[in-house]
Amino acid sequence: MSFFKIKGAIPPMITPFSKEGSVDYEAHIHNMKLWNQEDLAGYLVLGSNSEAAYLNEDEKLELIRTTAKYAAKGRIIMVGTGLESTRETIKLTNKAAQAGAHCALLLTPSYYGDQMGDQAQLQYFTDVADESEIPILIYNVTKYTHINISPRVVGELSRHKNIIGMKDSSGNIPQLIQFKKVVDHSQFNLMVGTASAWYPALDLGVQAGVMALANCAPRECVEIQKLYDKGQRNDARELYERVFPVNHALTASYGVAGLKYACDLLGFKGGYVRKPLLELSSDNKEAIRKIIVEADLLG
Amino acid sequence: MSFFKIKGAIPPMITPFSKEGSVDYEAHIHNMKLWNQEDLAGYLVLGSNSEAAYLNEDEKLELIRTTAKYAAKGRIIMVGTGLESTRETIKLTNKAAQAGAHCALLLTPSYYGDQMGDQAQLQYFTDVADESEIPILIYNVTKYTHINISPRVVGELSRHKNIIGMKDSSGNIPQLIQFKKVVDHSQFNLMVGTASAWYPALDLGVQAGVMALANCAPRECVEIQKLYDKGQRNDARELYERVFPVNHALTASYGVAGLKYACDLLGFKGGYVRKPLLELSSDNKEAIRKIIVEADLLG
Amino acid sequence: MSFFKIKGAIPPMITPFSKEGSVDYEAHIHNMKLWNQEDLAGYLVLGSNSEAAYLNEDEKLELIRTTAKYAAKGRIIMVGTGLESTRETIKLTNKAAQAGAHCALLLTPSYYGDQMGDQAQLQYFTDVADESEIPILIYNVTKYTHINISPRVVGELSRHKNIIGMKDSSGNIPQLIQFKKVVDHSQFNLMVGTASAWYPALDLGVQAGVMALANCAPRECVEIQKLYDKGQRNDARELYERVFPVNHALTASYGVAGLKYACDLLGFKGGYVRKPLLELSSDNKEAIRKIIVEADLLG
Amino acid sequence: MSFFKIKGAIPPMITPFSKEGSVDYEAHIHNMKLWNQEDLAGYLVLGSNSEAAYLNEDEKLELIRTTAKYAAKGRIIMVGTGLESTRETIKLTNKAAQAGAHCALLLTPSYYGDQMGDQAQLQYFTDVADESEIPILIYNVTKYTHINISPRVVGELSRHKNIIGMKDSSGNIPQLIQFKKVVDHSQFNLMVGTASAWYPALDLGVQAGVMALANCAPRECVEIQKLYDKGQRNDARELYERVFPVNHALTASYGVAGLKYACDLLGFKGGYVRKPLLELSSDNKEAIRKIIVEADLLG
Repeated sequence: MSFFKIKGAIPPMITPFSKEGSVDYEAHIHNMKLWNQEDLAGYLVLGSNSEAAYLNEDEKLELIRTTAKYAAKGRIIMVGTGLESTRETIKLTNKAAQAGAHCALLLTPSYYGDQMGDQAQLQYFTDVADESEIPILIYNVTKYTHINISPRVVGELSRHKNIIGMKDSSGNIPQLIQFKKVVDHSQFNLMVGTASAWYPALDLGVQAGVMALANCAPRECVEIQKLYDKGQRNDARELYERVFPVNHALTASYGVAGLKYACDLLGFKGGYVRKPLLELSSDNKEAIRKIIVEADLLG
Repeated sequence: MSFFKIKGAIPPMITPFSKEGSVDYEAHIHNMKLWNQEDLAGYLVLGSNSEAAYLNEDEKLELIRTTAKYAAKGRIIMVGTGLESTRETIKLTNKAAQAGAHCALLLTPSYYGDQMGDQAQLQYFTDVADESEIPILIYNVTKYTHINISPRVVGELSRHKNIIGMKDSSGNIPQLIQFKKVVDHSQFNLMVGTASAWYPALDLGVQAGVMALANCAPRECVEIQKLYDKGQRNDARELYERVFPVNHALTASYGVAGLKYACDLLGFKGGYVRKPLLELSSDNKEAIRKIIVEADLLG
Repeated sequence: MSFFKIKGAIPPMITPFSKEGSVDYEAHIHNMKLWNQEDLAGYLVLGSNSEAAYLNEDEKLELIRTTAKYAAKGRIIMVGTGLESTRETIKLTNKAAQAGAHCALLLTPSYYGDQMGDQAQLQYFTDVADESEIPILIYNVTKYTHINISPRVVGELSRHKNIIGMKDSSGNIPQLIQFKKVVDHSQFNLMVGTASAWYPALDLGVQAGVMALANCAPRECVEIQKLYDKGQRNDARELYERVFPVNHALTASYGVAGLKYACDLLGFKGGYVRKPLLELSSDNKEAIRKIIVEADLLG
Repeated sequence: MSFFKIKGAIPPMITPFSKEGSVDYEAHIHNMKLWNQEDLAGYLVLGSNSEAAYLNEDEKLELIRTTAKYAAKGRIIMVGTGLESTRETIKLTNKAAQAGAHCALLLTPSYYGDQMGDQAQLQYFTDVADESEIPILIYNVTKYTHINISPRVVGELSRHKNIIGMKDSSGNIPQLIQFKKVVDHSQFNLMVGTASAWYPALDLGVQAGVMALANCAPRECVEIQKLYDKGQRNDARELYERVFPVNHALTASYGVAGLKYACDLLGFKGGYVRKPLLELSSDNKEAIRKIIVEADLLG
């Protein structure tokens, strides 16, 4: 249970499926080999873009083991282990630790949304952090959970020695700044959860991003930060503005099926989505291809 | 795979937990013996009020088996088996069938809400109905899923021979009438999902209700329908208006913890909630007691 | 400043415009002559369906005067005079009184929604009621205001001697029952604000309805209540279920332009909508005609 | 009808009221004299923070005339003239022009929100721009209107020669970047509408901000941009992060009453709010004072 620093871009890895709906581990390994060649900080297994909501426990653990086995040295293996109940979250988190996870990213519980106020959130994250064998991070993704975690709660949780960071995918920059203000800085990794806010977040002092776009355009995500760190802010911003529309299209309009198709176009193995998600129409595929071409990502 | 008629009140059974958070099967059996004495149509295992989101598969199956074992003859065992993924839903539904379920109630998948349009919903329910060994029913509960199923989709699904009904918990009476208009009446059980709409629904021709209030006040829920059926509409309405505030308070303000406390007050064994749900404050307990006294439900 | 009883159906009158966008008072008089032949309880001038948000003060006052002049004897002239500011609402309400209004229907102020909590609502309605020369009624229409007025506030306001009722257009039947429970019954007119809830509301003891559908199908709206009052509940319900889809289509899908076209089809003069509202496409016109034919409203 | 460039900070001026609720023009002149001493780009009359929704036409025109009379040379007089109807907006805009407005800021019409799709928005802004004697700007403030204007619509409108800019108060930075991408850059002033996003917006190439905070802390708002322009980005960001909490508190928690109290504390004349807005409690006043002290704004 000790703090470690997270700096860089991390792909919330897609999970490729076969046409019949089984996890295609070979395709996952293929993707990892490509990602290993880029200067990424680590990998997120079982995030929203991994269709984690559709995976059973055996599949989840096998994906963690596979990722741990194939990850390049020194890379962080972050795993989404949040479930609705505190006790099931603790169990899965500790199984994930055994399978190779370095830290766990926990979605705010949301099914009984009316009952998930500040006090319930504080209790949930504290209980899991107390019992988890690995450090945990908070995952705020209002789009999926319809629940926001407040700066007040985040500030308080940031004092727990086993809570080492947060992924904020709300896209709300003013709130991101509030999060930054309330946390214990030397011991907390504030990460932005969408490439749509990558450059503004860097310029506000955020140093890590877990971004769908890092699946299919990892090099560009990494490069934006490198340019920024070298003081080439305008270059960083230009690159960001070039690839931003791709990220926006994938996450806001086409979802995981769109992200997987973009992966297919860019040399990765996207594979099928799992039902009830629908495959893309050919019109939507064409729209994605066009956006990728305009962002100059193809060849 | 054949249609059966559902008429009457059904409790979406609470799941009592011990202080440590284990399922208290003895308390469940205690409750069932009391419910067996009332003229209920059946039981819903693993509904929202059962804290189903917090149960693992072993607990789910054991609750079904226990319910099937203790249920009075002729009562319907309905089980909530909806999960986010189509394949996991099918697997759990068929295991539930083996454990004693007569039919399955399926929540609309909702995690990737933006992607769960009409077409995805049609595919999901059709795929599960095709593969399920028992008839299925649609569960529309916008409060928890933030997804509504449209009358158009329900109308189309009602033609599937293995989809035999729907529980509508939206509380939207005008939409309930639309559902009624579009379905195949002789072969579809339209059920209201909240006691807050029980009398208006009866008066619109709905014949079954799965209602939180039927946990702690089953006799009154049954009586409202009996009065209505005997033509004593005004008596039915008066009783409904008397007990309605209890249902509203439990579901809108205090959630499952409130429902469990009401059960405790009225002779049932509510037990603890599972974390991250919080137990009621003593102020809230007092407020519930007051509402129950005002509704004349206590001795 | 004295209470009067409101019982029956009331059209929230459309405002016909010429192609150039001027108020077509002749068309309004034409419509009134037709409505006068039906057994309506009165008229609402300047409601949401009147495009009141688009009218200037001179037009508003002229519409009131015209309505007062042409209304059949004994009919209530209700006028929507709610504006965002308390002082402007009082001024307009008293001008409306001079122009012939019998009572005023006040929208909950909503622009600064975050600041319009219970206390601000209580102050607003109390201040206006204190200064208004005519009785006032509360208008709850969450669809347009994104603000709900709570049963607690309505209960308190119902004790004011110059607040004589409420139009609830939220379509939320359980909340309607709560409103009914909290108000002072002998001195408060609880009115339903949509024909989509007309029969259920009648069956819950509500006696008045201000309904878009009463513009184009006033006879049917009146007849539903008459049948109900004579004890022919099933006939009332059947008629309601027959015309309900028309109301739903007009209000939920096509808006004021749809309502005006339905008026055109059924012998009234709908006229043009005022910009920025758009006229209907010919596809939408055809869809409305079809719905009206199916409801058997056309000759 | 010709383009002009807007660069700098602009206060959306508060409207001071007397205790009785009349506009306090003397207090307004007092404030203007103070603002004239700062290096602001201009003034917004009749914005959301001006309680414009509560002012009648006479008051609106008098405020414009007073502002035009007292404004320092070379400052832009921008006026909020958007009303729900196209024709009333055109009339008020041209009266505002006669009273001294240089350009008009038009709120997206929102009462009939369901009907205000892309086509209606395009028609509205185009119609007004065609008829307005002064250039117009689009005002996107989803918090108040519950309507968003899409990048597609903004892109198309930016080609109209009499539409010269936009104030985006949504706080959505990723969307702000999209707006920037779609507009005709040399002829369009993209302005950020909240100090909460001032620095991130500057760093994305936005050059003007209309910000509540510029009422009570104009010097700091101006200074952030100056530092940024001189290449002292870190200093700009630090100052922004220091004053940001004040802006957030005022706009998100305390509303116009809070902003006025902050003005009182910092040498301006805030005055009373107009009803139904409520004055601040003494607890809230104390909270605001504390935030202002922490931001080091008080002498």
